[in-house]
Amino acid sequence: MSFRKAVVTAASPTESHLPLQTLVDPEGVSRPALEILLDDLFAAGLDSAAVVIAPGKRDAYLNAAGARADRLTLIEQTEPRGYGHAVWTARDYTEDDPFVLLVGDHLFHSRKQTSCVAQLLEVAAGHDGCVSGVQPTHESQLHLYGTIGGRRVPSTPSVMEVTTMVEKPTPTLAEQELFISGLRAGNYYCFFGIHALTPKVMESLDRKVSALQEGETLGLTSTLAEIAHSEKYLAVEIDGQRFNIGERYGLLRAQLSLALAGPHRDEILSMLIEITATSRP
Amino acid sequence: MSFRKAVVTAASPTESHLPLQTLVDPEGVSRPALEILLDDLFAAGLDSAAVVIAPGKRDAYLNAAGARADRLTLIEQTEPRGYGHAVWTARDYTEDDPFVLLVGDHLFHSRKQTSCVAQLLEVAAGHDGCVSGVQPTHESQLHLYGTIGGRRVPSTPSVMEVTTMVEKPTPTLAEQELFISGLRAGNYYCFFGIHALTPKVMESLDRKVSALQEGETLGLTSTLAEIAHSEKYLAVEIDGQRFNIGERYGLLRAQLSLALAGPHRDEILSMLIEITATSRP
Repeated sequence: MSFRKAVVTAASPTESHLPLQTLVDPEGVSRPALEILLDDLFAAGLDSAAVVIAPGKRDAYLNAAGARADRLTLIEQTEPRGYGHAVWTARDYTEDDPFVLLVGDHLFHSRKQTSCVAQLLEVAAGHDGCVSGVQPTHESQLHLYGTIGGRRVPSTPSVMEVTTMVEKPTPTLAEQELFISGLRAGNYYCFFGIHALTPKVMESLDRKVSALQEGETLGLTSTLAEIAHSEKYLAVEIDGQRFNIGERYGLLRAQLSLALAGPHRDEILSMLIEITATSRP
Repeated sequence: MSFRKAVVTAASPTESHLPLQTLVDPEGVSRPALEILLDDLFAAGLDSAAVVIAPGKRDAYLNAAGARADRLTLIEQTEPRGYGHAVWTARDYTEDDPFVLLVGDHLFHSRKQTSCVAQLLEVAAGHDGCVSGVQPTHESQLHLYGTIGGRRVPSTPSVMEVTTMVEKPTPTLAEQELFISGLRAGNYYCFFGIHALTPKVMESLDRKVSALQEGETLGLTSTLAEIAHSEKYLAVEIDGQRFNIGERYGLLRAQLSLALAGPHRDEILSMLIEITATSRP
């Protein structure tokens, strides 16, 4: 399947400022996180992107997008009704097309020449259904992520056929239902935060939103799990890191990791030693 | 002299986004740099602040200021005509009152219980003229700062009476004209980036802006130097750090230093070791 559109969710009031944060990219250039994200998407072959934002953030986003603003659609989610609902607000943008979905409060940094999104799309290009990026994750972190169960596709060891998925499973449940061979003991494949999704996802969300009661919220994993039960759903292990820039010191961790992976590594290592030596508790 | 107003300059197109950056304050709370700055000012006893911004940034600043917006005046500098000119654009706000002046692309972090601004105002309260915050700076860094010459006030060793000041002096000039006793060899007192200024500064800038030719820019140091020649001008050594968050990795350096000074020091040290160990060049 071929992908031309992306949806990025950054609508929650606590995360809507994150893509606007400036950070130094691996080449040493200061850029808004949004710009780095959009460049990754367009470099992977997508034509345009929609970002679901909190109300009142439109100007700031257009500003941060700069020259990329003409390929950007901004959608305001007026009420916080869950991740699935945020994705659903982009239905007029995706129409009947497949789309790449990313969480906007994360930064994705590839360990390969190709970006994380490009790694996902390589697998999605040869498949007619949904594909999710995943990463081995220790059981102590399962309470944070959607987790998949399934079996490896024999000829391509980084690709799995997904048979089930559970949002934030307990370690016990994971051990019983989500074991995948070839991972270290106590590790499971959790969502990386990027997905290549078919129009069927949007159709399913549309039905669920219509049935949503006052005060209810709608997640995404239940919808993806339904699709995994009814058709062939793949997952690919992404060779890269995801940084949750929404958590405390998350931006610091992301910035430090990016800087240590780039050409200014020695400068950063010197700085770390200097700051640690002169800091006082 | 008693101070109730502050002027913060953040007008250059390359620095206007800096006060909007979110960082984790020493207590571990994620906040925009602007909010941290304003809280320091108000905690030091000031009533209000004006920020000189680049055009088009008004909404973003009001947003970042949150509940502090009602004590905030935003002033757009429509053309980049130098630091002195940026300060001058706030003349309708300062009127005939003295004011604290801060550069908006720096973060100021006190090593004492009292903030850097409060340290400055302690000295300014007992003096009728201008007071500038200064910091010992190695001669290799003089090309970046305004540098003062003068003599120590006998009873208060951290306070100097300023007799001269030079913008970005050469080490040779500094050795001849800007020596102050009691500093390590090769160190001079450079501006810290915060000043307590009299209305006379605004009057002098007003005259200079009227005489400004097309295409000329106006600095601030020449005006301060004139005042230091005509009346008693003090400088106080601030016990704190300034972080230039406008330079490459400046925000990373600031964030890391703040985090290591706070209650999450151990968490940050663990993180540093983990990231350094797992990073690949």
